[in-house]
Amino acid sequence: MFVYLDNSATTKPYNETVEVMTKVLTEDFGNPSSLHTLGIAAEKYVRGARKTFAQSLGASEEEVYFTSCGTESDNTALMGVAQARRRSGNKIITTAVEHPAILEPAKRLESMGFEVEYIGVDKQCHLDMEQLKSAITDDTVLISVMAVNNETGTIMPVEEIVKLRDSLNKNALIHTDAVQAYGKIPMDLRGGFKGVDLLSVSGHKIHGPKGIGGLYIKKGLNVTPFIIGGGQEKHFRSGTENTAGIAGFGKAIEISNNNFEHRIKAMSEAKDFLANGLKAELKDIIFNTPEDSAVSVLNVSFMGTRGEVLLHTLEQDGIFISTGSACSSNKKGQSHVLGAMGLKPKEIEGAIRFSFSEFNTIEEMEYVLEKVKKAVTRFRKLGSFR
Amino acid sequence: MFVYLDNSATTKPYNETVEVMTKVLTEDFGNPSSLHTLGIAAEKYVRGARKTFAQSLGASEEEVYFTSCGTESDNTALMGVAQARRRSGNKIITTAVEHPAILEPAKRLESMGFEVEYIGVDKQCHLDMEQLKSAITDDTVLISVMAVNNETGTIMPVEEIVKLRDSLNKNALIHTDAVQAYGKIPMDLRGGFKGVDLLSVSGHKIHGPKGIGGLYIKKGLNVTPFIIGGGQEKHFRSGTENTAGIAGFGKAIEISNNNFEHRIKAMSEAKDFLANGLKAELKDIIFNTPEDSAVSVLNVSFMGTRGEVLLHTLEQDGIFISTGSACSSNKKGQSHVLGAMGLKPKEIEGAIRFSFSEFNTIEEMEYVLEKVKKAVTRFRKLGSFR
Repeated sequence: MFVYLDNSATTKPYNETVEVMTKVLTEDFGNPSSLHTLGIAAEKYVRGARKTFAQSLGASEEEVYFTSCGTESDNTALMGVAQARRRSGNKIITTAVEHPAILEPAKRLESMGFEVEYIGVDKQCHLDMEQLKSAITDDTVLISVMAVNNETGTIMPVEEIVKLRDSLNKNALIHTDAVQAYGKIPMDLRGGFKGVDLLSVSGHKIHGPKGIGGLYIKKGLNVTPFIIGGGQEKHFRSGTENTAGIAGFGKAIEISNNNFEHRIKAMSEAKDFLANGLKAELKDIIFNTPEDSAVSVLNVSFMGTRGEVLLHTLEQDGIFISTGSACSSNKKGQSHVLGAMGLKPKEIEGAIRFSFSEFNTIEEMEYVLEKVKKAVTRFRKLGSFR
Repeated sequence: MFVYLDNSATTKPYNETVEVMTKVLTEDFGNPSSLHTLGIAAEKYVRGARKTFAQSLGASEEEVYFTSCGTESDNTALMGVAQARRRSGNKIITTAVEHPAILEPAKRLESMGFEVEYIGVDKQCHLDMEQLKSAITDDTVLISVMAVNNETGTIMPVEEIVKLRDSLNKNALIHTDAVQAYGKIPMDLRGGFKGVDLLSVSGHKIHGPKGIGGLYIKKGLNVTPFIIGGGQEKHFRSGTENTAGIAGFGKAIEISNNNFEHRIKAMSEAKDFLANGLKAELKDIIFNTPEDSAVSVLNVSFMGTRGEVLLHTLEQDGIFISTGSACSSNKKGQSHVLGAMGLKPKEIEGAIRFSFSEFNTIEEMEYVLEKVKKAVTRFRKLGSFR
């Protein structure tokens, strides 16, 4: 059996994603900036994807930009707002559990003289709203809080953060890294996400290709462009448009949006089945994912085991999981997210992230449950001999 | 007939490029940072492409990085060197005929307090070496000169620039935007390009996909990373690797390198045939491309015509050309390159860029010659009635 449960690291592109990319690469390979019909044909894909992307957020086409990845979107948001608003204030607020694509630019901004405050979380990655409340000063130019945490699936209270901002400092902008939220929770800039000023997404987390990202910037905002040159993307993101990637991303947005309810239901059923099964059949496990989380992630600490060993054991059974986020797995050291949540080293050591897509089935989860149970039990038995 | 002569704007991906991309997208879709075998399988493509890319330049694998495009590579080189060397000096040298991906960051660096000197060119885009010589001061941290000009095909004297630097200020780094040179002229960092410290290339100019670029940075150099986060690309370029794009780029490098001589011969024959034909059959034309140029570009001013009208006329005949670089074609105003070369407005107005690939044939050129002749003659006749 082949069971892919590492969908928060990356997803398998839809067949339709690959089809449209192949068409662009083989037939409509023109440069969108070219004045002739081959250019115009290429530009049509960009325009179509832009429309789809904007609509999916409840934004207008002039408010969305294509970038090369979620990381570039995050970097652009932080560096671009900081640069444009330098004179308005000196404080930036983010959280201790952001993706490195936010934390690294935040550190760079600190080295450039900005004050950055990192809001803490509790044991299930819920944001400390009291700390946030007292953090928002007149000097604050940007609040960047992810919409869904990549390691735990915890949903951050974007709506409440907007309310806090509105009551404490209307001039502070709000950015949300929605890379793990997009397509997993409802996201409407005219609804629950109203008041968000900038929002980042990534193609390969929703069955689009790698190498493409999106950024929403509310109309009228002055944000300094990050990658500059030929003036593509309304002068906001230069570089020849990745037409195949953009077309594939647009197709993935279209499909995942049209099947939103079905997808959520499938993921939710798989996750609940697995969570309930683990709860019923294994002792000494801790759920690091709260009940009210996004349907895409289940993070569990199997006490007395090591996540990395479980990962490689389950891999032998054709089950693909993760110990944390893929983006930090190539680094030494333990998850900064689970650390910030106050987990003990032993709890972090035994942590596994299962992350779901609409293609996961109950049959797969039965298989996973059996294999996880076996691996954990075996590990604990062997471990006791050490 | 379909004759694509806009290869400096973008090229048609090789079939093999598309094939490997499709394989990555459908089968090997893992995240290279994932610890399991799907991650390892994905990482293999990146490693393979890195080796191919490094070898093509005579560099080592640890000296090359993948970016999202030539523009990002150029931005990274300029901003990264300026940031890392701020304390060593304040002067940056570039040319008046660079791509906007260099000129825009240069302007930004000026606004940050750097002194930037733009070296001029003559009527065939040859660099003013006397100006360059007197421009290199002790305070100079970077000299960025493109290897081949995108509008004229003029080859810049990289070897001589290195010699000048070596004799005047050994600490100044040399960057070359090789986007239009890569695969068109021999390029060896152990040979004619020895002494170059940073070098940018782009995938879609050599029959690879759009959305992928490369950057060479000499071993041991301290250059500040531009896009930061999860630490991919040896911490130099964060963001989940565009595995399909990287694999496609690697395949395109492999093919274009293995067929270098054949490709150069095919382009050269097509270009010479067209140039000689135009010279023989049309009066009042000016070749803005010098004799000793790269085989890929032929820029001609057809006096008494308008390039844009010729472009749309020839398009009706299935011939696809450009009036200048695609990257500036969506902007109002005339080519800054031809302007810097001292061409008169009428000469710029009538300019056309033919740019070649190995797929162009003599038969195609006969057809193009006939159609260009017809279009120019017709335009001149009609023009005289105005």
